[in-house]
Amino acid sequence: MENKRIIVIGGSAAGPKAASKARRMDENAEITVYQKASDLSMASCGYPYYVGGFFDDRSQLLCSPAGVVRDSRFFWNAKKITTKVLTEVNSIDREKKQISYTDLTTGETGMAPYDKLVIATGATARRPPVPGVELQGITTLQSIADADYLRKIKDEGVIKRAVVIGGGLIGIETVEALHLAGIEITLVELLPQLLTFLDKQMARLVETYVQTKVNVILHNGVASFLGENGKLNAVKLQDGTEIPCDLAVLAIGVIPNTRLAREAGLEIGERGGIKVNSYMQTADPDIYAVGDCVEIPHLITGKPVHAPFGDLANLQGRVVGENMIKGNRVKFPGTIQTGICKVFDYGVGSTGLSEQHAIREGITGFETVVNASLDKPGFMNGNLLITKLIVDKESRRILGAQVIGPGDVSKQVAIWAMAIKGRLTVDEMANADLPYAPPFSLAIDHSIATAHIMQNKLDGYLTGITADELYRRVKEEESLLLLDVRNPIEFEQMRLGIGERLIPLGQLRSRLGELPEDKQTEIVTWCKISLRGYEAALILQANGYTNVKVLEGGIAAWPYAREK
Amino acid sequence: MENKRIIVIGGSAAGPKAASKARRMDENAEITVYQKASDLSMASCGYPYYVGGFFDDRSQLLCSPAGVVRDSRFFWNAKKITTKVLTEVNSIDREKKQISYTDLTTGETGMAPYDKLVIATGATARRPPVPGVELQGITTLQSIADADYLRKIKDEGVIKRAVVIGGGLIGIETVEALHLAGIEITLVELLPQLLTFLDKQMARLVETYVQTKVNVILHNGVASFLGENGKLNAVKLQDGTEIPCDLAVLAIGVIPNTRLAREAGLEIGERGGIKVNSYMQTADPDIYAVGDCVEIPHLITGKPVHAPFGDLANLQGRVVGENMIKGNRVKFPGTIQTGICKVFDYGVGSTGLSEQHAIREGITGFETVVNASLDKPGFMNGNLLITKLIVDKESRRILGAQVIGPGDVSKQVAIWAMAIKGRLTVDEMANADLPYAPPFSLAIDHSIATAHIMQNKLDGYLTGITADELYRRVKEEESLLLLDVRNPIEFEQMRLGIGERLIPLGQLRSRLGELPEDKQTEIVTWCKISLRGYEAALILQANGYTNVKVLEGGIAAWPYAREK
Repeated sequence: MENKRIIVIGGSAAGPKAASKARRMDENAEITVYQKASDLSMASCGYPYYVGGFFDDRSQLLCSPAGVVRDSRFFWNAKKITTKVLTEVNSIDREKKQISYTDLTTGETGMAPYDKLVIATGATARRPPVPGVELQGITTLQSIADADYLRKIKDEGVIKRAVVIGGGLIGIETVEALHLAGIEITLVELLPQLLTFLDKQMARLVETYVQTKVNVILHNGVASFLGENGKLNAVKLQDGTEIPCDLAVLAIGVIPNTRLAREAGLEIGERGGIKVNSYMQTADPDIYAVGDCVEIPHLITGKPVHAPFGDLANLQGRVVGENMIKGNRVKFPGTIQTGICKVFDYGVGSTGLSEQHAIREGITGFETVVNASLDKPGFMNGNLLITKLIVDKESRRILGAQVIGPGDVSKQVAIWAMAIKGRLTVDEMANADLPYAPPFSLAIDHSIATAHIMQNKLDGYLTGITADELYRRVKEEESLLLLDVRNPIEFEQMRLGIGERLIPLGQLRSRLGELPEDKQTEIVTWCKISLRGYEAALILQANGYTNVKVLEGGIAAWPYAREK
Repeated sequence: MENKRIIVIGGSAAGPKAASKARRMDENAEITVYQKASDLSMASCGYPYYVGGFFDDRSQLLCSPAGVVRDSRFFWNAKKITTKVLTEVNSIDREKKQISYTDLTTGETGMAPYDKLVIATGATARRPPVPGVELQGITTLQSIADADYLRKIKDEGVIKRAVVIGGGLIGIETVEALHLAGIEITLVELLPQLLTFLDKQMARLVETYVQTKVNVILHNGVASFLGENGKLNAVKLQDGTEIPCDLAVLAIGVIPNTRLAREAGLEIGERGGIKVNSYMQTADPDIYAVGDCVEIPHLITGKPVHAPFGDLANLQGRVVGENMIKGNRVKFPGTIQTGICKVFDYGVGSTGLSEQHAIREGITGFETVVNASLDKPGFMNGNLLITKLIVDKESRRILGAQVIGPGDVSKQVAIWAMAIKGRLTVDEMANADLPYAPPFSLAIDHSIATAHIMQNKLDGYLTGITADELYRRVKEEESLLLLDVRNPIEFEQMRLGIGERLIPLGQLRSRLGELPEDKQTEIVTWCKISLRGYEAALILQANGYTNVKVLEGGIAAWPYAREK
């Protein structure tokens, strides 16, 4: 049997992974990776941290765990994989099973035959179609060249003002990087909120925090970039505001690179990515596609999504590496779009469906809850976590969770991602056996406590009201009895100041006489995190009040301005 | 209907939780908690951190999240729960449905009737039956009085030498606490290893680390305590060694407090705990039992276990609080004995079955693997994690995981605990969608990489050899070809030195001629973490070698002395 010829188009994450796994499955295959850029296997998710100065040695973005730069020599010596860098693939001839390419250094072109082909062409940063977008000083943070450019700006220290356009994951990471570089930042987002994988209340809590570091402008897009002598000197927004700056970073999303696939007659899906089956194979059985250029099924909705995450790209590469050699043996199941980012001292993460996403998909019959608590005991310097949980009412299955705060967000999101993976109900989660010791968690872990509150809501013990709804109703001057049930010292230090009365929980039973006689009076209770708020609501209900709600997440999750 | 009378015996963790939940379910129930000690709702898992000086304010061990000490006044005002502290329950009269008690302050006795009774009597620290155990200077770390005693020793700074007896969770936490208190420690363990929930290799890695901080003596028990004038001045071991010291802490396990239950004719199980059904109810339908005094089913073996963990006690209390009021409505499923402890800068955790535990239970047909990697990228200051995973070969279901190291152990153990809860196979775990960003994890998370190695083993791509087996065989001077495939610089800095040859992975294909012609030669390969070791093995196999093994976990997981 002749050696299998494998060609991989794309040398960043998914491509090299597919090539390496194929090599491990078949020592004799002839494997070639074509890479348009000059570097290989770049840790692109690390760019913001290189720009921000978390580390200074650029080669760390290109190293194997053993500290060897993954260049062409490395790939050949360690893996017997040929890598052609600075080489662009121009077209795929499916009939002849060959590709044509151009060596970008010499301009020479060539053809190469394949038995199996992997398309791992990635995605390109979107650029807004506005005047001035070609000015010098406007960049993205997508390629290692971008990272080099921004790192140079940090090191030179000349540029003092920048605008970051786009408040998604990359935008937020860029904001932190440039802020650490000592640059004054304005973050501009077209939508009314940052980080659209979060629901509004959660996003607003993050916004409030980010605003303590940089200037945030929401619901306002870029109208044009202004400049002199070809160099950027201001960004003009749609409302006419001009923001002087010497640097603008575009972070308004990415577009899958599908030209090669499309021109080869392969199907492009509704989300703009290359269509693949569960083996990551296109309609052509000899062509696979992986990484940021494909769309994959969402495991809850079943619909295709574009999920350009570095971890999924690597996992898909591994699947394809095996399938190319062994025949279609391994499936890639899809995604629940688990994501996380560091936002200064906050973690911000999400897995599964948000409320907004569920509504967009026409999913109804879910319940939500917001919970706030420490990640570990106060005496171990616990930090705040705020979680919004989404559960299907009928099956009580967990649909999604968003977690933010200075606490250990990463562990919480991992727990919920695994709960969704295991198709757990909130009742199964309520008695999960998680690792507990004071240096690591509360006796009842934040995730389990969140499940408990959800159970209380589903079982009718707790009627919640969201901060958004309470805020709106207070603004509309609806008649509500508002009860803060903390103690007077806490009330003096911090309070909402939206017309609430203070009756400490410990006095509530003896001061019921101060409340309206009308048992149908609508009452909203809260405390710092609404645990005592819940207990107060139960006392009121037991005393005949029929319309009592608990402010979910309490003061800790209140995303609006407070009196103090 | 008359108000329900609920009596709870025990006021530490599970008891107050049951009482509080019952109150939330029924505002009118008459709830009384009897507590032999003077304090209530103590965060007993926090004692070692108070002793060690992580915090100085003792009241934090007794506080609600809002910072209010949970004393009798708090329980009455906030929860309308009567608490009788310094009151011992003497007996339960099931026929008359009443208990008898003694007020330890006044000596007065009394009777109290119940409709529902909760036994939450906890467990008592075991004391070895050896001469001198009554000497002054010998304590446990079980009660808040013990914590006060040890904290006073830290604050006074007079005692300089201590012996901790028992290398389980509490023993190890005590060692750290006293070490931080500036005391020179010897840790003595009767068994040949510390932390018996870990398998031997994992335990040995922890031992090596602990030995850098304190003196560790294994496989040696206490023969007697020696003293003068009633005060301890040395511990004498079974091998005759005498260790001079002024303080000894006993941490050799706990015994469930079951006297009351036993005398009331309730059944005690094979593990020494009170027998309960899945509603946490004893054979008497009006009596429930929760916390450290019960035994509960292990969710994998189905057999009863004693699982004295603070988190489970709280969860059980919540279940019973609801069942007492609403009728048996909620089940407590059991445990996978998930646990974690901090060992200086290491985390050490486990969930599900260890290999030793599986063997003890007569379970066969499992596969194990050891994996070592960073928790996040080196450029983000990643730290080492070492995991041992146990999987059922037939179903490929995950049975257990142990994780140790300076990396983020807590998240890893939580992930595996959730994987077991969701009854996942290693193949489902291999494509889990976990939160990835460089500040939090590797692109392929340590847990997922561990699943990948297990797949490679189950699918026959990888034949592993454990460090224990290699060590034994090298000692027995078996003829093995040992290949370290790292680069020469790494080899110079650190190496096992057990007769290995260095052939860097990148040179292996061109240096095959240096290897024995006999293709049946037994070869063992490794690198730092055995990723390159695996690639080397595949190259050798592809070149006809039929007996190649990879040292699992590589040098990072080698638990024996190294040449350098």
